[in-house]
Amino acid sequence: MDAPLYLQLAQRLSQHIAQGTFAPGEQFPSVRQLMKTHQISMSTAVQVCHTLEDWGLLQARPRSGYYVDAAPRAGLSRASEALPTRRLTQPDSFTGLHATIARWLDLLEATPPRINFMTGVGAPELYPTAALQRLAASALRQHPEVMTQMTRRYGHPDFLAVLAKRAATRGMQLRADQITVTNGAIEALTLALRALCQPGDTVAVESPTFYGALQALEALGLRPLELPTSPSTGLSVEALAMALDDPRTPIRALLCMPTLHNPLGCTMPDAHKRAVLQLCGEHGVPIIEDDIYADMGAAASHCQPIKAMDETGLVIHCSSLNKSLAPGMRIGWMSAGRWQARVEMLKYSQSRFPEELGQIVLARFLASKSHDRYLRRLQQDLRERRQALADEVARCFGDQVKLTPPDGGLFLWLELPAGVSAMQLGHDALARGIHIAPGPLFSGQPRMDRFVRLSAGMASRADITDGMRSLSELMAQQLQPPGGGAMH
Amino acid sequence: MDAPLYLQLAQRLSQHIAQGTFAPGEQFPSVRQLMKTHQISMSTAVQVCHTLEDWGLLQARPRSGYYVDAAPRAGLSRASEALPTRRLTQPDSFTGLHATIARWLDLLEATPPRINFMTGVGAPELYPTAALQRLAASALRQHPEVMTQMTRRYGHPDFLAVLAKRAATRGMQLRADQITVTNGAIEALTLALRALCQPGDTVAVESPTFYGALQALEALGLRPLELPTSPSTGLSVEALAMALDDPRTPIRALLCMPTLHNPLGCTMPDAHKRAVLQLCGEHGVPIIEDDIYADMGAAASHCQPIKAMDETGLVIHCSSLNKSLAPGMRIGWMSAGRWQARVEMLKYSQSRFPEELGQIVLARFLASKSHDRYLRRLQQDLRERRQALADEVARCFGDQVKLTPPDGGLFLWLELPAGVSAMQLGHDALARGIHIAPGPLFSGQPRMDRFVRLSAGMASRADITDGMRSLSELMAQQLQPPGGGAMH
Repeated sequence: MDAPLYLQLAQRLSQHIAQGTFAPGEQFPSVRQLMKTHQISMSTAVQVCHTLEDWGLLQARPRSGYYVDAAPRAGLSRASEALPTRRLTQPDSFTGLHATIARWLDLLEATPPRINFMTGVGAPELYPTAALQRLAASALRQHPEVMTQMTRRYGHPDFLAVLAKRAATRGMQLRADQITVTNGAIEALTLALRALCQPGDTVAVESPTFYGALQALEALGLRPLELPTSPSTGLSVEALAMALDDPRTPIRALLCMPTLHNPLGCTMPDAHKRAVLQLCGEHGVPIIEDDIYADMGAAASHCQPIKAMDETGLVIHCSSLNKSLAPGMRIGWMSAGRWQARVEMLKYSQSRFPEELGQIVLARFLASKSHDRYLRRLQQDLRERRQALADEVARCFGDQVKLTPPDGGLFLWLELPAGVSAMQLGHDALARGIHIAPGPLFSGQPRMDRFVRLSAGMASRADITDGMRSLSELMAQQLQPPGGGAMH
Repeated sequence: MDAPLYLQLAQRLSQHIAQGTFAPGEQFPSVRQLMKTHQISMSTAVQVCHTLEDWGLLQARPRSGYYVDAAPRAGLSRASEALPTRRLTQPDSFTGLHATIARWLDLLEATPPRINFMTGVGAPELYPTAALQRLAASALRQHPEVMTQMTRRYGHPDFLAVLAKRAATRGMQLRADQITVTNGAIEALTLALRALCQPGDTVAVESPTFYGALQALEALGLRPLELPTSPSTGLSVEALAMALDDPRTPIRALLCMPTLHNPLGCTMPDAHKRAVLQLCGEHGVPIIEDDIYADMGAAASHCQPIKAMDETGLVIHCSSLNKSLAPGMRIGWMSAGRWQARVEMLKYSQSRFPEELGQIVLARFLASKSHDRYLRRLQQDLRERRQALADEVARCFGDQVKLTPPDGGLFLWLELPAGVSAMQLGHDALARGIHIAPGPLFSGQPRMDRFVRLSAGMASRADITDGMRSLSELMAQQLQPPGGGAMH
C-alpha cells in the first residue's frame, strides 16, 4: 500500500525545502495555492502543512500563513518512510490536534522501540499476570457459560459491589447501582461528554492534558478551552474562575485529572479540589473527573477525588484498572451523579455492557489480600523507577531541564531549554529507536513544544542510562547545530 | 429506592382515570397544564403522558393532544409496580422512541420470564459452550500475558485474518487491514453513524427495524426516515427511490439489514440488494449494512451481503458473533469502505480496541472444522424451532394472524387482527410471565401496534404450547372484552 497522498507530497516538498527551492524565512505557498498547484483537496493541503510543521520545516504565523523555518532541520522525513500499512493518519481522518497525535502514534508504531519512554503503562513484570491468569482459569471452570450467555446490564454484580466498596476507601459514598461498567475509562469520558455536550460546545481542560481526552473532544466536535495548569499543584483555580466568569466562552463542562495528572504527575491539593468543585457548582458546570492513576501513588491512593467532596451529583467520576492492574483489559467504570441515567442510556445504545469474565477476575482480585500486597509493591517499584529516571535526568541535563518531582504515577514532565523543539527531539530520538512523548501531543498551544513527557514505566536501568545520554546528545545538537561549531 | 417521579405520577393519574375523574373520550390535561398542576419539569410531564399512552389509558391525537382512551384497560399499571432499582427509564433519559423501548425492557427485567419469546438469542444449549471454554482455557495457558499487555490497535491479527477469509466465503473481497474489531455490532453501528452524520441529519431505515438501531439514532440526535419494508422481500426499492428523489428529506445514509432482517426474518432478493446499491450510489448515499444474522439461516449463509456487490466503498458492513456463536462475547467488527480511516479514528477515540482473549478464542473456533459442524447443527435446530412455533401459531390463531414464513434466524413477525393492540397483548402476557416483543418497539409508526415479534430461540416445545394458548386467550379477551359476552 502506498503512503497516503499528503505524506507523499509532504516528503516531496520537504526535499524542495532541503534543496533550497523554498528558502529559509520565505513564505510558503498557502493552502489554496497548494490545492491548485497539486490538484488536492483542502484537507490534504492542510495535512501537508501540518506535517511539514511537525517535521520542523515550516512555522505557522498567525493571520499570515506558513513560513519556511529559518533553520530547517534535515533528516526528519526519514522516520516517516516506513509507516505501517494501516494507520490513524489516513486521509479522511480528522485534521485538528488529532492529526498531530495520530501522526506521532503511527510513526512510533512503524519503529518499535529499543528504549520506551512513551507508553503510559508499566513493564509486564509490574503486573500480577500469573495471579490474574489463575483467577481467569478458575472463573472459566466455574462459569462455563460466561461466553455464551448474554451480559448483564450495567456490569457484573460482584464487580460493581467491589467497586462500591473500594470507592468508600477513597471517601466516595456510592452504591453499586450508581456505577456503570464501561470499555475502559476512555469510553467513560466519551459517554460523559456525550451526556453533557452538543457539538460546538466548549469544554474546559487542563493544559497540558491527556491526548486521548483532546481526541475525544475533537471526535465529538467539541472545543477545548485550555486552562493554565501547574506541574506541582495542577489546574489553576484562578484561571478557572476567570474562564467561568467570561461570558464570551460559555463552558459546558470541566474535564480534569485532579489526582496524579497525565502528563504532569501532580495531584491537586485538597483545598484546590474543593475550590474547583465550589466554583463549578456556583456556575452549574459539571465536572468530568478522570481518576485512573490514583492507585499508582502511595499518597494519592489515600487522597480524595473531587467526587468524594461532591454532595450534589455534579461530578462524573471515571476510572479503570487498565493502568494500575491489567493493561490487557478494557474495563473501566463511571459514576455520573445527576447524569447517571443519561449515561446508562448512552452506554446501552453505544455498545451494550462489557463481557463478564474479566469483571469476575477483577472482582476476585480486588477483594483478595493479594491486591493490597500487589499495590504496595507496585507503588514501591514505581517510586524507584521514577527516582532512577529523575536522577539520570538531573545527571545528564543538570540545570538545563526543569523537572517538578511528580507525586506518583508513571510520568516525568520535563521543560526543555529555550531553542530546543520537543517535536524535533522526538523525531531525532525515534531515529535512534527511542520513544518519547513530545509536549505538542498534550495541547494545541505552540509553547508546549518546549516540554517532553517521559514514562518511567517501561525502561530498565540500562535503558535509562542509555536513553538519557542519547537525549542529551540530541538536545545539544539542537542547541549547537553541527557546523555551528562555536564550542570547537 | 422510590419509583421515579414520572412513574409515581402516572400511577396516581391512572387511578384517577380508573375512577372516572377523567372520563373516557375526554381531553387529558396538556403537558403545560401537568407541569403547572404538579410542579414538574417538561420532560417528566412528557414521560407521564407517554407512560399512560403505553398503558393504553391515553390516546395521542396529532395537533390536539392526549385523550382518555374510550375503553380504558384497567390493571396495566400493575406490571410496573415492581420495577428494578436501576432502569433505562429513569428521569433525564431520552424521551422519544427510546422511552417506549426502555420502558418495555425495564418492565421485562422486573418480571423474569416463565416463557421467553422476547430475547433475540438462542437457548444456552444451542451454543458451543464447552468448546469455547476449552479454547479459552488453552489460550490462557499459552498467552498468560493476555490480560496484562496492552491490546493491539484494530484487533488481534489472527482474528482479523480469519474474518477476512470468512468474508471471502460470502463474496466480500476484504483484506485483514480493512476490518476493525468493535464492541459488538451495536458499537459498529454507532461508529458508522458518527462517521457519516451530524446531529439533525436524516437516516433512512426499514420499517420495522431493530430497536437498537432506532435508539442509536436517537442517542446521536439523528432522525429516522422509516421506509416501507415487506415481510417477504424486505426494504421497498420503490419507496427508497422515492425518498432519495424527495428534496424535502435529504438522506444522509441508509441503515439496513438486507439478510435475515430483525424483526421480519426475511432476506432481500439479490436483485433488490443490487438495486438498493445502485440507487444509493447514484445519490451518493452511503449504506450501513447490519449483517449479524447471516449465519443463522442455511440459505442466507450463502447469500451475499450488499457489501459483496459494492465496488466503490459505499457500504459500511457491520457484523458480530454475538447472536450466532457467543452471546456472552461483545465482539463485533466492521469494514467501512471509504470511511474506514474515519471509523478507526472514532473507534480509537471512543473506546480503544477490544480485549484479545475472546478474539483468540473466536479466531481458533472459526478456523476449526467444529465451526462448520456447529453451524449446520445450529441452522437445523433453529429451523425446527421456527417451524414448531409457526405450527403452533397456525394451530392457535388460524387465519386471525398473518405470518410470512421467515427465511431463517430467530424471529417470527405476526400481524394481529384489527382491534388487537400488541402493546396491550404484551402487558397482558407479561402478567402471565410471558415475554414477547410488541411492534411499537420497532418503529415510531402507530400502525406497528398491530404486530408482534416472537423469538423462537429460547422457548421449549412445552413453552410454545403453553405460551401460544395463553396469547390466544389474551387476544380473544381484547376482541371480546369480558362483560361484552356476545358469544355467551
